[in-house]
Amino acid sequence: MTRGAFITVEGVEGVGKSTCLAAIERTLRESGHPVLSTREPGGTALGERVRELILDEHDGGLSGQIEALLIFAARARHLQRVIVPALAEGRWVVCDRFTDATYAYQGGGRGVDRNALDAMAQMVQEGLEPDLTLLLDAPVEVGLQRISEREHDRFEKEHISFFNRVRSTYLEIAEQAPERVRTIDANRPVDVVASDLLSVLREFTARFVGASR
Amino acid sequence: MTRGAFITVEGVEGVGKSTCLAAIERTLRESGHPVLSTREPGGTALGERVRELILDEHDGGLSGQIEALLIFAARARHLQRVIVPALAEGRWVVCDRFTDATYAYQGGGRGVDRNALDAMAQMVQEGLEPDLTLLLDAPVEVGLQRISEREHDRFEKEHISFFNRVRSTYLEIAEQAPERVRTIDANRPVDVVASDLLSVLREFTARFVGASR
Repeated sequence: MTRGAFITVEGVEGVGKSTCLAAIERTLRESGHPVLSTREPGGTALGERVRELILDEHDGGLSGQIEALLIFAARARHLQRVIVPALAEGRWVVCDRFTDATYAYQGGGRGVDRNALDAMAQMVQEGLEPDLTLLLDAPVEVGLQRISEREHDRFEKEHISFFNRVRSTYLEIAEQAPERVRTIDANRPVDVVASDLLSVLREFTARFVGASR
Repeated sequence: MTRGAFITVEGVEGVGKSTCLAAIERTLRESGHPVLSTREPGGTALGERVRELILDEHDGGLSGQIEALLIFAARARHLQRVIVPALAEGRWVVCDRFTDATYAYQGGGRGVDRNALDAMAQMVQEGLEPDLTLLLDAPVEVGLQRISEREHDRFEKEHISFFNRVRSTYLEIAEQAPERVRTIDANRPVDVVASDLLSVLREFTARFVGASR
């Protein structure tokens, strides 16, 4: 059996990730691919407990290091229990955020050492990389304005300069891995963004299915 | 103010760690050093939750990678909130297990990649190493026999070959860092072990206090 494709969707708050995830899932299903949609951190019982631990209030806050270690622990479980088995069964996995988000938020945003992130990523991914990463990009002010009506969690309360570092890190990753990461300009009407995204997805799908034959 | 000394005690199950920890603490207090006794994982609210998470039953068990990531998250918090502030205040910190235990149990015992452990240790310790590590060493069978009457937790249920790998890794560390790690033969009557341990401790104390003047 051919293994499924591993697709991740990345971007800062308010860029329209949820809408895009739904559109991707629908399109893949319509093309006849069995799809598993999942999210990070979370996706497993351990992951949900780690997610709670991170979002709880902690005296003095949690350092970026601790966040990164907990996120990679959740990711290791997510890979072992959910992502790797699903791909092996031929399902396509669409994941709301993955390791790029840790480089962007904990690395770029909070200053965690890049070598430590590399070592943890290597350890838990054991060579598995997303086949396609869709990076939804928009100026931070645009995204934050869009979410201003929604309930803000701890990450969303952080300030503009933090999100600018996150966005820059995402864009650096896209520059360094152009064959994997496709950047979509999310600062346009939602139907234009979706149409752009789906054309990238179709092109990828044709290539991936062709290569698997 | 002079910073306190950071002393760790290591060894596999049943080597008499608890008795030795109590003797060390008593001796240091008698010499007039303010002592903080703590343990790993744990020592903080986050650490205790991580400890619970590790000791819980998980479908299929937790991998060594996940254990290592969770343990380093607890350790980072323990360092930031407990160990580093206490040392800075001039207190002597005696810690029941530290990073050497992660190399021994998750590295040697469970096969977690050594480079990943190095990267995590560097990240969370930020250059801080124990000033003295007392390694209580005895053949695994001797230790396991001593604890056979006590309640066994998950780690203690693992088999002899696992504990032999743990012990070998401890002994390798001691060989590689002879100035920091002092190995005590724990396969002797408890009063002989304690007397040996306390003479190593007194020699260290004289040296540490002398160097701090």
